[in-house]
Amino acid sequence: MESKFIQELKPGDRITTFFILRKREIKLKKDSGEPYASFEFGDSSGRIRGTLWNNVKEIASLLNVGDIVKVQGFVTTYGDSNYINVEKIRKAVQQDNVNKSQFIPRTEKDTRMLMLRLFSIIDSLKNDQIKRLLHLIFDDIDFKNEFAKSPAAKLWHHNYLGGLLEHTLNVVDICDKVLGNYERVNRDILISGALLHDIGKVAELTIEGFIDYSDTGRLLGHTVIGCQIVTQKISTIQDFPKHLSDQIQHLILSHHGQKEQGAPIVPMTLEAIILHCADYLDSQSNAILRIIKKETKDSEKKWSKYINLIDRFIYLGDG
Amino acid sequence: MESKFIQELKPGDRITTFFILRKREIKLKKDSGEPYASFEFGDSSGRIRGTLWNNVKEIASLLNVGDIVKVQGFVTTYGDSNYINVEKIRKAVQQDNVNKSQFIPRTEKDTRMLMLRLFSIIDSLKNDQIKRLLHLIFDDIDFKNEFAKSPAAKLWHHNYLGGLLEHTLNVVDICDKVLGNYERVNRDILISGALLHDIGKVAELTIEGFIDYSDTGRLLGHTVIGCQIVTQKISTIQDFPKHLSDQIQHLILSHHGQKEQGAPIVPMTLEAIILHCADYLDSQSNAILRIIKKETKDSEKKWSKYINLIDRFIYLGDG
Amino acid sequence: MESKFIQELKPGDRITTFFILRKREIKLKKDSGEPYASFEFGDSSGRIRGTLWNNVKEIASLLNVGDIVKVQGFVTTYGDSNYINVEKIRKAVQQDNVNKSQFIPRTEKDTRMLMLRLFSIIDSLKNDQIKRLLHLIFDDIDFKNEFAKSPAAKLWHHNYLGGLLEHTLNVVDICDKVLGNYERVNRDILISGALLHDIGKVAELTIEGFIDYSDTGRLLGHTVIGCQIVTQKISTIQDFPKHLSDQIQHLILSHHGQKEQGAPIVPMTLEAIILHCADYLDSQSNAILRIIKKETKDSEKKWSKYINLIDRFIYLGDG
Amino acid sequence: MESKFIQELKPGDRITTFFILRKREIKLKKDSGEPYASFEFGDSSGRIRGTLWNNVKEIASLLNVGDIVKVQGFVTTYGDSNYINVEKIRKAVQQDNVNKSQFIPRTEKDTRMLMLRLFSIIDSLKNDQIKRLLHLIFDDIDFKNEFAKSPAAKLWHHNYLGGLLEHTLNVVDICDKVLGNYERVNRDILISGALLHDIGKVAELTIEGFIDYSDTGRLLGHTVIGCQIVTQKISTIQDFPKHLSDQIQHLILSHHGQKEQGAPIVPMTLEAIILHCADYLDSQSNAILRIIKKETKDSEKKWSKYINLIDRFIYLGDG
Amino acid sequence: MESKFIQELKPGDRITTFFILRKREIKLKKDSGEPYASFEFGDSSGRIRGTLWNNVKEIASLLNVGDIVKVQGFVTTYGDSNYINVEKIRKAVQQDNVNKSQFIPRTEKDTRMLMLRLFSIIDSLKNDQIKRLLHLIFDDIDFKNEFAKSPAAKLWHHNYLGGLLEHTLNVVDICDKVLGNYERVNRDILISGALLHDIGKVAELTIEGFIDYSDTGRLLGHTVIGCQIVTQKISTIQDFPKHLSDQIQHLILSHHGQKEQGAPIVPMTLEAIILHCADYLDSQSNAILRIIKKETKDSEKKWSKYINLIDRFIYLGDG
Amino acid sequence: MESKFIQELKPGDRITTFFILRKREIKLKKDSGEPYASFEFGDSSGRIRGTLWNNVKEIASLLNVGDIVKVQGFVTTYGDSNYINVEKIRKAVQQDNVNKSQFIPRTEKDTRMLMLRLFSIIDSLKNDQIKRLLHLIFDDIDFKNEFAKSPAAKLWHHNYLGGLLEHTLNVVDICDKVLGNYERVNRDILISGALLHDIGKVAELTIEGFIDYSDTGRLLGHTVIGCQIVTQKISTIQDFPKHLSDQIQHLILSHHGQKEQGAPIVPMTLEAIILHCADYLDSQSNAILRIIKKETKDSEKKWSKYINLIDRFIYLGDG
Repeated sequence: MESKFIQELKPGDRITTFFILRKREIKLKKDSGEPYASFEFGDSSGRIRGTLWNNVKEIASLLNVGDIVKVQGFVTTYGDSNYINVEKIRKAVQQDNVNKSQFIPRTEKDTRMLMLRLFSIIDSLKNDQIKRLLHLIFDDIDFKNEFAKSPAAKLWHHNYLGGLLEHTLNVVDICDKVLGNYERVNRDILISGALLHDIGKVAELTIEGFIDYSDTGRLLGHTVIGCQIVTQKISTIQDFPKHLSDQIQHLILSHHGQKEQGAPIVPMTLEAIILHCADYLDSQSNAILRIIKKETKDSEKKWSKYINLIDRFIYLGDG
Repeated sequence: MESKFIQELKPGDRITTFFILRKREIKLKKDSGEPYASFEFGDSSGRIRGTLWNNVKEIASLLNVGDIVKVQGFVTTYGDSNYINVEKIRKAVQQDNVNKSQFIPRTEKDTRMLMLRLFSIIDSLKNDQIKRLLHLIFDDIDFKNEFAKSPAAKLWHHNYLGGLLEHTLNVVDICDKVLGNYERVNRDILISGALLHDIGKVAELTIEGFIDYSDTGRLLGHTVIGCQIVTQKISTIQDFPKHLSDQIQHLILSHHGQKEQGAPIVPMTLEAIILHCADYLDSQSNAILRIIKKETKDSEKKWSKYINLIDRFIYLGDG
Repeated sequence: MESKFIQELKPGDRITTFFILRKREIKLKKDSGEPYASFEFGDSSGRIRGTLWNNVKEIASLLNVGDIVKVQGFVTTYGDSNYINVEKIRKAVQQDNVNKSQFIPRTEKDTRMLMLRLFSIIDSLKNDQIKRLLHLIFDDIDFKNEFAKSPAAKLWHHNYLGGLLEHTLNVVDICDKVLGNYERVNRDILISGALLHDIGKVAELTIEGFIDYSDTGRLLGHTVIGCQIVTQKISTIQDFPKHLSDQIQHLILSHHGQKEQGAPIVPMTLEAIILHCADYLDSQSNAILRIIKKETKDSEKKWSKYINLIDRFIYLGDG
Repeated sequence: MESKFIQELKPGDRITTFFILRKREIKLKKDSGEPYASFEFGDSSGRIRGTLWNNVKEIASLLNVGDIVKVQGFVTTYGDSNYINVEKIRKAVQQDNVNKSQFIPRTEKDTRMLMLRLFSIIDSLKNDQIKRLLHLIFDDIDFKNEFAKSPAAKLWHHNYLGGLLEHTLNVVDICDKVLGNYERVNRDILISGALLHDIGKVAELTIEGFIDYSDTGRLLGHTVIGCQIVTQKISTIQDFPKHLSDQIQHLILSHHGQKEQGAPIVPMTLEAIILHCADYLDSQSNAILRIIKKETKDSEKKWSKYINLIDRFIYLGDG
Repeated sequence: MESKFIQELKPGDRITTFFILRKREIKLKKDSGEPYASFEFGDSSGRIRGTLWNNVKEIASLLNVGDIVKVQGFVTTYGDSNYINVEKIRKAVQQDNVNKSQFIPRTEKDTRMLMLRLFSIIDSLKNDQIKRLLHLIFDDIDFKNEFAKSPAAKLWHHNYLGGLLEHTLNVVDICDKVLGNYERVNRDILISGALLHDIGKVAELTIEGFIDYSDTGRLLGHTVIGCQIVTQKISTIQDFPKHLSDQIQHLILSHHGQKEQGAPIVPMTLEAIILHCADYLDSQSNAILRIIKKETKDSEKKWSKYINLIDRFIYLGDG
Repeated sequence: MESKFIQELKPGDRITTFFILRKREIKLKKDSGEPYASFEFGDSSGRIRGTLWNNVKEIASLLNVGDIVKVQGFVTTYGDSNYINVEKIRKAVQQDNVNKSQFIPRTEKDTRMLMLRLFSIIDSLKNDQIKRLLHLIFDDIDFKNEFAKSPAAKLWHHNYLGGLLEHTLNVVDICDKVLGNYERVNRDILISGALLHDIGKVAELTIEGFIDYSDTGRLLGHTVIGCQIVTQKISTIQDFPKHLSDQIQHLILSHHGQKEQGAPIVPMTLEAIILHCADYLDSQSNAILRIIKKETKDSEKKWSKYINLIDRFIYLGDG
């Protein structure tokens, strides 16, 4: 018996392991009309299809999407994809000692340490009103917990638990490193904008078993949601300067850089330009790196498959 | 002595009248190096340049941008434009009995009646929570006053005092007229979205003497500002349904229809599509009508001059 | 025996019913090389694939694409789609008392009543020459019949028999309702343009069993075809004013609003702008409504599947 | 006394010559308020501004836009442009022996010879119905005369009398030269499409003194107008094959190649692709050549001024 | 036994023939988990899938991608595609007397004659330095051989051995035919640019068994590669005029016409405009012609399937 | 006597100072026809127009564009711009002890120190072949001198002597600071790409008195020119690995990020993505900072004038 991650499975492998059940359908065999069950399983490394040919009705009716299931079977292949020929499957029980959170991919970094770094960055700022605002937001225990475990996107970049925190700190880091190259950059505005630019993703994305968009996320989008969190907190601070409030919100609203990319407002301050570039650099680099890692895992090829989202192949290098 | 509106002035006219002073510069004559004053005057019908050749320093130093001034002189022409050869100019005094508000163009409609109509529309809605939200916003006396006198844009459409109210009611009216053509339209959501779609313009535009953008307006944009007004009020209503809140905000955020047009989110509900089309219809029609009226005022031409904003000429008709 | 519509079929249903035969192919079984028949059936509610495993050659050779066929079998599923495991199939005969027209989707409205409304709209116009033109076009008995049963599009909006008439009257209705909001609208030009804007679709689309493009439709497009119908009729009217002819044709040619959307000319008159907006509103709303209805038919989901044509999901609401 | 063309005038030149009067305005002098007259003159080589300082009212009132005028004065310069300081000006009289046609630029080629070539091309076609169509169009004496003297555009390419004929024959020539490189080209369809592709320009442009758009031209555009001329003639030919009619019209409608360029339909046949490329080659090359000739007339510069329409400079070469 | 080309195969055909092996995978049967082999075969006419059900491991392990294989089996169909049910398969041996070059599609023209024509074109030029440059490039025996057998593209146009040479001569031919229509064309620059415009494709594409991109090709692109070949050769010619070098390279770099199409520089000379149009005409026409030929091979349909690359259907004509 | 920089001049200032003569035209006075001279002067801070009214012919004929001239006069204003009323002007002579280089704006940094830093960066690389390549390029004494004094652009960013060096080191610096944030970045490739990405600007721009494009610069563009410099040097290094050569050139060619921005190839490696973002960040930030500095020099305004190149206003802050 083996308990491999989905990404590691190869045709011929025999497995006995736990997965999250992502999809479950009863179908009829083409020629005989007898039922069989088609599943999609997931774990923190990816997803795989599976098929159960026998005793379908009794077994499948006990399983629901979102359940943790224990699966025994062997790996085979169809078209270009692997799938699991399921011999046994059952819902996990308490004694199995497994929980859902282990089936979602998560950052390899220590989020507790990352949060400490985030707070030390806040403390490095000079403007007391801005520090108060950031503390109001990040000291909120519910928000802080959500923020620390949120992904930064569903698919493209930092698409794992803790990804938002990781991405945020990367963007802050880039801003902090480059701001010395330009005169007249207001560090407090730039760094607070960097810390806040994606906080709306906490509400934009849901992570029930897997990452998806919430209703609010689709209907409002994370830039506006993030901006609203900030406005609400500012409204509770006495005499928060209007021009600081405007500028910090401007950084959040304009960080996508162009209207075509969903920015309701284009960057109009030096800090907004820098934040946009830093965000672009980190999100693109993380995405490309994810592709490179995935495609070079177990093959020698020099080029990724075609990446539709950016209309190109990625060069994987030469040794 | 004549007291014509700027739009009516013709070369050769002698005038003695009041204007708002929009610009004031001291320049030196090309050949002699002697000073002269160059002005831009405005009234509710438009703007015109003017020049004062004598006693410039004594006179001009008494005048500031934003002042109401009394001007005597004659109208002449330079290039394609009229301008005023100023013989006398002085700041208006109390006895002149003039005030700034009369120098800004305003709707020809009765805004008090329009506000009554707006409230009767609110009262026609069925959902109590939505009605409560709308009353919270429009019953606020400061907001109501601002809203009633705000323009809907700086230049393109409804660019006059009361223009926002007029445009808002037009959009509501169009929505109300067409919603019966489609099943499953939620009138309460559609009409409240129509009422609220441009309220952010109250803060986006300033009307000190003439219409311009505020700092906040440029940095945040009216869709987000409007959305924030709504969120803030909703947060004070107990148990306001999340899905209604999301949908109403979605209508505000998506009313420009496309990302290229500054919508952070594209319309994803039937009501959002209808609101976008109604807004598009009213803003375009008002703008085209303004061009037609202006260009046909005192000439027989069949085509407008080239309109850069929409890359075309407008046909003015054939009698 | 059951005679359900295709849209209502569920895995496990046994059926004996009539369909239109849309496709018919003989294939060979993968392993044995024996032939089987693969079909696509249609009725007024949709389309479904089907397979016949036995006596293929004798049976299938008697069937042609476009035939009405009587099918007995059961519904099963493959991938995400249902299909029919065909046990018996034969061509319909006269005694079956079925005809092709019942297999194409059609408007739920009474087209005779709609045509009456169309004529009463024509009669409401004031300009005699324009009324004469409209009568010349719509009194033509062949054209009138074609017009009354034509769809307005193949797939996106009003894609059913009578859809063109329904859409046309909707656009007229919207124009009529909003024109009072703007001065200087020439109702005769606007309404005649609305009545005529899509008449070219009569020749652009074919409805032999299902809706498709004609050769002429693909090579010339409905705006130009419609314009030619109008020119031809105008050429038979003595002294039809050139400027009216130009303007009415302009409305037809520009109703898509932008060159990228296939308008050879952009709207340059107030009437053309209004017609474009009204057409846009009705076609988008009808399409979105069709999606909402289809996706909410038998499920509780809150979001449609991704709609490629408009690059978004549609929110289906919250109860 | 000198009678130079406008293009040849240099500061300091004294002139006594005839021009067409393109614009005429009375203005008031900036300081004294006295009237002076501002003119725009044109001849077949270009246009130039002029000013008359004395006896303005008596003289200018006798002149109308579109008149031929006799002008005496000297050439001076203002900003980057030359203009004429007018000393004497009067309307031309019969004895002056001048006529309007000589003030419009025209092709340097012999249009009678070009028309002969056009007819020999028609006669080289094989399909009798297509030949009949072409004769119906080009044998019409009024149309033929209009066609022979029409320009092909207002500004960009072949913007002179006879330019349409010249451009048409060039496009035919290119098509004829390249069609042998591809199998399956139907020469009759391609060449007839080339002959007809721009005939709508006869009605799109007016040449009363100078080249401009007609009302019909702006409202309908030359592709649709040209297509209508063809349809009308085809309707008078018995049994003209539908597929030929569709294809020839398709060539006219699609010759701009892309929707963004105003083609209501994109090229869908091999002949349509070739025609589009040939038209593109000839119009661009003629326009670039015109720029090169104009900019190298009397200077040694290596680069043209910036050409906004194509967003680039043109390299004028190195000797 | 039959030895048909892949394009000619029909369901039911029995074959014994040679192919190139393009892909080779071992898969497991869905139900039993037993292995079978899935192949992709190619010859000069196209590609086809195939399946071997028995003795898979022994047989398949002897075969490698790129091998020539001898295949016995029958043709069947799956979905819309044919495939081969393989009964026997083995690697080709020397006695079979086959070689790889016969499995790649190639021009139907005589490339030796085409090369002679290319050299006679070079000899027709007047400028000795340009002739020297062209000889330096095309006299290089390695380059000449590569050039003569290179395709002009992977998929879209002239996608066969010799296609680059054929396309190059077509473009030269078009340029030569049309240049007489415009004054001031420098034939030496235009024709040398046409000869050189695509030479970078020699290094951009690889033809090991089938046409694909090289690493260098993807990373640098053929315009820049071609330009570098030219610079390198020019650097070996004494006193090659800078302005000629610049212009010839400009023609290569700008031949795609627009930045969106990958031209780092847009055409700024008359010769560059003409070359771009000639290249566009020949590549589009060849591509459309290829589609027309393929789609009309054995059916009567009037329209091609939808061509994604150019977003349209192609009309195949009416007999 | 005062010797201010052009940027500091105010209306009324009397000056006696040296300028570079950028333009020189003789014009005729509007009313009298007498000649006057119109100049454009430049110094390292900017440019200004000037006029000489008397003794024009004698004086002006002694002056040529590109000369250093000594000017006496006073500053006045016309429209929105200052200009100089010239009383005396003469060509500078040797005793004046001025030279052209002092009239071009230059970096405030010490380029000798910057060059040292550049070499220390080269020495920090690990790959010997890459170091050899960089030394071959930057050790070339002519190239080094050109590189050290070249601007990075004509107008938008780093548009002063030494700007290229400054920009290059900034981009290197940003790359070096962020590369640690991503695994698998090849520092040698990234940093060498950053050092080389804009070297083509040495040949793209000319600095004879003021910054302009060279013929080669316009016809080939700096990305291709830079790539050619690199290829030429690589061709002299034995066994320079092909994949390194390809990747370094790829970084140069793709650094504009998108085809629309003139990149012939889009970034396909992690290093190329990072370089593009770093270049984008530095060029945009430098440009915005230049605007902010210029617009806040001597006024209190909160917004820049409209910046056409990026279609927006820039917020200048609130104190």
